[in-house]
Amino acid sequence: MTRARFITFEGIDGSGKSTQSRLLHDHLTGTGLPAILTREPGGAPGAEDIRRLLVEGDPDRWSPETEILLFTAARRDHLERTIQPALKAGKTVICDRFADSTRVYQGAARGDLRTLVDRLHDAVIRIEPDLTFIIDMDPDAALARGLARNSGEDRFEDMGAAFQHKLRAGFLALARDYPSRCHLIDGNRSANDIATDIRAITQATA
Amino acid sequence: MTRARFITFEGIDGSGKSTQSRLLHDHLTGTGLPAILTREPGGAPGAEDIRRLLVEGDPDRWSPETEILLFTAARRDHLERTIQPALKAGKTVICDRFADSTRVYQGAARGDLRTLVDRLHDAVIRIEPDLTFIIDMDPDAALARGLARNSGEDRFEDMGAAFQHKLRAGFLALARDYPSRCHLIDGNRSANDIATDIRAITQATA
Ligand SMILES: Nc1ncnc2c1ncn2[C@@H]1O[C@H](COP(=O)(O)OP(=O)(O)OP(=O)(O)O)[C@@H](O)[C@H]1O
Ligand SMILES: Nc1ncnc2c1ncn2[C@@H]1O[C@H](COP(=O)(O)OP(=O)(O)OP(=O)(O)O)[C@@H](O)[C@H]1O
Ligand SMILES: [Mg+2]
Ligand SMILES: [Mg+2]
Repeated sequence: MTRARFITFEGIDGSGKSTQSRLLHDHLTGTGLPAILTREPGGAPGAEDIRRLLVEGDPDRWSPETEILLFTAARRDHLERTIQPALKAGKTVICDRFADSTRVYQGAARGDLRTLVDRLHDAVIRIEPDLTFIIDMDPDAALARGLARNSGEDRFEDMGAAFQHKLRAGFLALARDYPSRCHLIDGNRSANDIATDIRAITQATA
Repeated sequence: MTRARFITFEGIDGSGKSTQSRLLHDHLTGTGLPAILTREPGGAPGAEDIRRLLVEGDPDRWSPETEILLFTAARRDHLERTIQPALKAGKTVICDRFADSTRVYQGAARGDLRTLVDRLHDAVIRIEPDLTFIIDMDPDAALARGLARNSGEDRFEDMGAAFQHKLRAGFLALARDYPSRCHLIDGNRSANDIATDIRAITQATA
């Protein structure tokens, strides 16, 4: 496992992406592999400023179109200033959400804007992960976990349970669309059991 | 002059856009015409939040590509929430900067990114002004005016005098590219003389 890879975690709100990306990062660095842990939206100083505009405030603060532009701006900044420099330096990049979230949140669940999402991705992002874990779980259980955290970053969670069900369907469709890099993970288990699966797949695909 | 028009003011930093757009707005509303005065980046609550990210901080805070995405996001929000509702309600919209600024600042002066600027414009903006005043003046004199204001919103002014000279050339080229809507105005005169010209053209084109 020497090549620096770009590994992403995807799934609905509260499905365990942050927990699992942290556990994988701890594991890989523990084996001596140079790796960074980052997240979207955010992951660079400018992108984190954009994140605040996106995750705080009323659900209707931005239209889906404006939201896609802001996510893409944050992603471009993150890519230029964090992801690409790390990969070039031989570091594996573990990223908590990436372009798949935009494909599902803005491209499917918030409106039928997948064409716009894809146009912007092709114009300024282009890169795809080497490996993507999609953590799948029951939206009602995930929403309950998420709300328990009470982080203030709840603009998308405030879009409600029906929205989370749409998101889940979107992520399942995405896993079918990109079968070579996407691995569907059952999130209705203990964090340890999930982490064991994810480590095995990471090793097997290296 | 009954049709609601979309009128924009363009030009380098400190050339007098804000002064002249305010004077035209005062004049038109004084004649009883329903009109709003707005500006870019900004002009709606969300777009003003994006404005702060764009006009404050170090010149290299954003790459030209990220900057184009942020300007386009702000413009989309402004269009949806301020410009289109006003035009639909029969109000003339006077806007201090619009898409031409992005064409010149990000499309020409900061890098050769006009293709990206145009792709984003075609994807989410599309509208063009009915009438555009490009205030042309000596960049060194304009820069001195601008710096005298000391607003804290000086990220682009901090890009220096050579940058302002590139901008001027970009605006002159733009006036040639869109001759039917663009009117080149000599800004090296008193605010009153300039306003008189602008009023005459506004009336003649109504
Ligand atoms: N397998 C698990 N079983 C039970 N609780 C879990 C599990 N994994 C994570 N949690 C808890 O659920 C909550 C959400 O987990 P986490 O923050 O990792 O999800 P997330 O997918 O990153 O959420 P968000 O999309 O909101 O960022 C946290 O309080 C976390 O401790
Ligand atoms: N014709 C003029 N002659 C002299 N000073 C002027 C003239 N027009 C405007 N000014 C002054 O020059 C400064 C810049 O004018 P203004 O703010 O209207 O320019 P601007 O193009 O909007 O600048 P910016 O691009 O920085 O927003 C202000 O202090 C203004 O009072
Ligand atoms: Mg998380
Ligand atoms: Mg001004």
